[in-house]
Amino acid sequence: MAGKHHWFHDPITPDFTQLHSLKEIVHTTQTQFQQAEIVETGSFGRCLILDGKLQSSEKDEFIYHEALVHPAMVIHPNPEKVFVAGGGEGATVREALAHRSVRRVVMVDIDGEVVKLCRDYLPGHHRGSFDDPRLELRLEDARAYLEQTRERFHVIILDLPEPIEAGPAYKLFTREFYTLIRDRLEPGGTVVVQSGGASYGRTECYTAIANTLKSVFPHVYPYAAEVPAFGGLWGFTLASLGPDPLAMSAEEIDSRLKARLSRPLGFYDGPAHQGMFRLPKCHRQKLAEETTVIADATPFYIY
Amino acid sequence: MAGKHHWFHDPITPDFTQLHSLKEIVHTTQTQFQQAEIVETGSFGRCLILDGKLQSSEKDEFIYHEALVHPAMVIHPNPEKVFVAGGGEGATVREALAHRSVRRVVMVDIDGEVVKLCRDYLPGHHRGSFDDPRLELRLEDARAYLEQTRERFHVIILDLPEPIEAGPAYKLFTREFYTLIRDRLEPGGTVVVQSGGASYGRTECYTAIANTLKSVFPHVYPYAAEVPAFGGLWGFTLASLGPDPLAMSAEEIDSRLKARLSRPLGFYDGPAHQGMFRLPKCHRQKLAEETTVIADATPFYIY
Amino acid sequence: MAGKHHWFHDPITPDFTQLHSLKEIVHTTQTQFQQAEIVETGSFGRCLILDGKLQSSEKDEFIYHEALVHPAMVIHPNPEKVFVAGGGEGATVREALAHRSVRRVVMVDIDGEVVKLCRDYLPGHHRGSFDDPRLELRLEDARAYLEQTRERFHVIILDLPEPIEAGPAYKLFTREFYTLIRDRLEPGGTVVVQSGGASYGRTECYTAIANTLKSVFPHVYPYAAEVPAFGGLWGFTLASLGPDPLAMSAEEIDSRLKARLSRPLGFYDGPAHQGMFRLPKCHRQKLAEETTVIADATPFYIY
Amino acid sequence: MAGKHHWFHDPITPDFTQLHSLKEIVHTTQTQFQQAEIVETGSFGRCLILDGKLQSSEKDEFIYHEALVHPAMVIHPNPEKVFVAGGGEGATVREALAHRSVRRVVMVDIDGEVVKLCRDYLPGHHRGSFDDPRLELRLEDARAYLEQTRERFHVIILDLPEPIEAGPAYKLFTREFYTLIRDRLEPGGTVVVQSGGASYGRTECYTAIANTLKSVFPHVYPYAAEVPAFGGLWGFTLASLGPDPLAMSAEEIDSRLKARLSRPLGFYDGPAHQGMFRLPKCHRQKLAEETTVIADATPFYIY
Repeated sequence: MAGKHHWFHDPITPDFTQLHSLKEIVHTTQTQFQQAEIVETGSFGRCLILDGKLQSSEKDEFIYHEALVHPAMVIHPNPEKVFVAGGGEGATVREALAHRSVRRVVMVDIDGEVVKLCRDYLPGHHRGSFDDPRLELRLEDARAYLEQTRERFHVIILDLPEPIEAGPAYKLFTREFYTLIRDRLEPGGTVVVQSGGASYGRTECYTAIANTLKSVFPHVYPYAAEVPAFGGLWGFTLASLGPDPLAMSAEEIDSRLKARLSRPLGFYDGPAHQGMFRLPKCHRQKLAEETTVIADATPFYIY
Repeated sequence: MAGKHHWFHDPITPDFTQLHSLKEIVHTTQTQFQQAEIVETGSFGRCLILDGKLQSSEKDEFIYHEALVHPAMVIHPNPEKVFVAGGGEGATVREALAHRSVRRVVMVDIDGEVVKLCRDYLPGHHRGSFDDPRLELRLEDARAYLEQTRERFHVIILDLPEPIEAGPAYKLFTREFYTLIRDRLEPGGTVVVQSGGASYGRTECYTAIANTLKSVFPHVYPYAAEVPAFGGLWGFTLASLGPDPLAMSAEEIDSRLKARLSRPLGFYDGPAHQGMFRLPKCHRQKLAEETTVIADATPFYIY
Repeated sequence: MAGKHHWFHDPITPDFTQLHSLKEIVHTTQTQFQQAEIVETGSFGRCLILDGKLQSSEKDEFIYHEALVHPAMVIHPNPEKVFVAGGGEGATVREALAHRSVRRVVMVDIDGEVVKLCRDYLPGHHRGSFDDPRLELRLEDARAYLEQTRERFHVIILDLPEPIEAGPAYKLFTREFYTLIRDRLEPGGTVVVQSGGASYGRTECYTAIANTLKSVFPHVYPYAAEVPAFGGLWGFTLASLGPDPLAMSAEEIDSRLKARLSRPLGFYDGPAHQGMFRLPKCHRQKLAEETTVIADATPFYIY
Repeated sequence: MAGKHHWFHDPITPDFTQLHSLKEIVHTTQTQFQQAEIVETGSFGRCLILDGKLQSSEKDEFIYHEALVHPAMVIHPNPEKVFVAGGGEGATVREALAHRSVRRVVMVDIDGEVVKLCRDYLPGHHRGSFDDPRLELRLEDARAYLEQTRERFHVIILDLPEPIEAGPAYKLFTREFYTLIRDRLEPGGTVVVQSGGASYGRTECYTAIANTLKSVFPHVYPYAAEVPAFGGLWGFTLASLGPDPLAMSAEEIDSRLKARLSRPLGFYDGPAHQGMFRLPKCHRQKLAEETTVIADATPFYIY
């Protein structure tokens, strides 16, 4: 056998590219906002690709989505109202809805065509979450939505692609937007922001987001988990008006999960939580040295 | 700008390949045992490649070598005698020699041509360690050497490439060899084994090594750290006749490092140590489910 | 625009690979004999791939098939009976059937699944030729068929993939098979053999086929045409019991085409014919220096 | 053996890329005008790369340079004075100087750093031609040079990279420049222009150059030869104030070569000449349909 011959080329940086073997290009479309594709890879199963970048894979999306959602949820004593920006695959709301405490989730994604694509082609991602009666799905700009609403949430989850020059998301990564987010939190609320690559040497996005959040929130906790399909460590930033993720023991987390969740998880538990928040020295140093504060007037773009 | 046009293709699995931009192919040679190359990449600086697989990079080798060496050294109360198998770049002995407690390091690498190549072309890796008077460097088979010596060590570090069918290393990953290792340890000694990829979905080598060590040692602690040039999480296994890496607080580790090390580290410290040993649920599950015990008669090969 | 991100990798030699952008993997199947795929490329439209090698493309198959079929047909004064071995796409018989003189075409292809695949997915290739009442399609081994028949043909066309070790075709490239071919020709008949790459530096297959035919036929005329999807010049060998392709002027060829064809061609005409048979010095030299005669007992395999 | 792992990626079109295995990146430099590299490939030996595009290879440069130079030289009855624009490798002047009739060659290349690079690293290309006393080498803009001189030449050879947006060469592909060229020819003089890819489907540059020359010269003869390292057929255009390349028999060409050349050739001779000028129908059609006339005010750029 001569090896695989169809490949998806995913450029991670100008000097580093990942190739995933391709079994099928299931669907390709150009939405109003981006090029969206569903492909079947040999390495990671069915994947969503936006503008040529892998967004999530059937095989390891559980790592990404559990790492994104559960820390901010678990450390909150009683998350009833959750706001999700982005997350078109439906897997972020899936994880939020797994908490029995949750009574209402508002998900706002600007690209209805991507949501529909995921609904049709990624059943393993959403697993029916779009039909959960607790979910209100809105297809519009998340910032505009939050500006006009007066509702407050216990947990806010920003699951947005890192900003590229042509992309729709750059105004959702700024100090102004994070200020708006803070104002829409209930007292003691928590926020989590997917923050891009966190591999040593490619943390510019991650550290800039963490630093920008620091300019708005009293407590900010960067953390990371490896998502293999993304090519390494992935960064998340938890910002909080109260609860402290470092203050909970593995046992407390496990017992809270047990009490609250309607089904078992694959990646996240007490030890996973503790591992994610214990960053190595060089990562903490990069975070400490960051001075960028992203603002509407000085946006930030990645490769 | 048209993008980079020279690339090193590093096949990680049959379905996944990493491309590193290439600035220079510094040196290529076929030794008695393997094809060895020094290249300069745009992504990770100067790299050693053996049989077409990236072995270590200038930019992030400190992560790999600190993660490999320091846990087993730090948890040992007074490591004076250290044995290293492999580690041709000289960076493993560099980290061991950084502990002031160390009085003698025996390093045995079968491929003298690779050691010479690294000595000539990777000065940033060895940083003069080959000239440390505490080092005895032997160019021969590590197993044969350990079989004929009666010397015992406080810490043994196995820094060997994962076994490929044609490669020289497969007999250094078996229960029989690990039994020999155990017999060459001083009471209360520790061992660490570089264990291959630990990304979710590619942990076969890592879990098999951990399970094989469990058949020989009373206490076995798998851990992982992300080495970006290797494409994700990398696995290590610590086996111990006494000390327990989970029993030490971050503060204790930091104060022991402070007392013992002759220079600051880049990656490893108390929080890093704690993060590495707190594996997520799915990783612990893969480790728990493993049944393979590698033996001389039933060797193990990777892609 | 970030460039294309899905690619078909087609290894031409161990040192040279072509990448075609991929729009769709239309169909993939493993037949009894080979892996067969239909893909849609950005470079060459819809393509047939066998065992990872591009076989023919929508965009330039007319060059290959016209170059293969028409010289041997045109120099024959009255081709009525034609035998085709291989040619599963149906385009070779399409070109033969375009000659009004033709009354009967026997096509023998061993892989009925490939024929069906092409029939279903490559309508632009066969354009209904499989339904021409003059065609007899047989799904069996061409050599076995010719051994048992007593029928003789005016023109025989061998449109077979170059032999790879695991492939079904190696016995259709030997002196013994060419002797059988010669015995199935009418007096004054002509044969053409698709002969693999003819780019300078990769002509081993081409020159070996030409030399093997020389050991059997009185007159042998190698020629070449560029098929872009194949990455350069492609080789063909015309063997003849009489007619001489070098003896006809461009005008004679054009007038014979005009008299005989039922539709216009895209690539082939008098000047094209003359260009194809006028090989440069270095190609003629490679052909002259070849000493290999492929035999059943000493088969020939390509990369 | 796992195959080659270092590759030079040469994008031919947005949908088609060629990969050459890389043995060494011999030298890389950024000149005032372009990025220039010498590399050693497994496929084609030592190569010159400008701005990421392969310019010529040790293994098949003789095809390109003989095809470029000899037709225009051979059909001229007595070429004594030759002008070469570009041709930094020194191989174009090498071929011109092989004609004993030549008494003076003026070569003008704008990029002295590339000329020096080739002189140092491509001895097989220039073979000492830079030291031929008949050569005058000038490092300046060819157009500016021709504008100020009053000298006239028997043969003018334009060996310039096809124009890319950022490149220095776009003003050497326009009607205005070709008019200047015509004015610098002796009566009965000939011109040849390297004209870019001529593979079916990628002939935009080739046909535009031919059509532009037609707006200036009385007789224009496009022709093509396969240069494997360039990925297929390569286009050339011969423009003439008198001699007709189609009027000479293969025998006449061979006898003129015999009388005039100081050494044997590898690619070019009478049959090669005749093959190159006999283009297939689809190529002649593309040439006939072309309407673009490149002008200073409306330049032409390639991918």
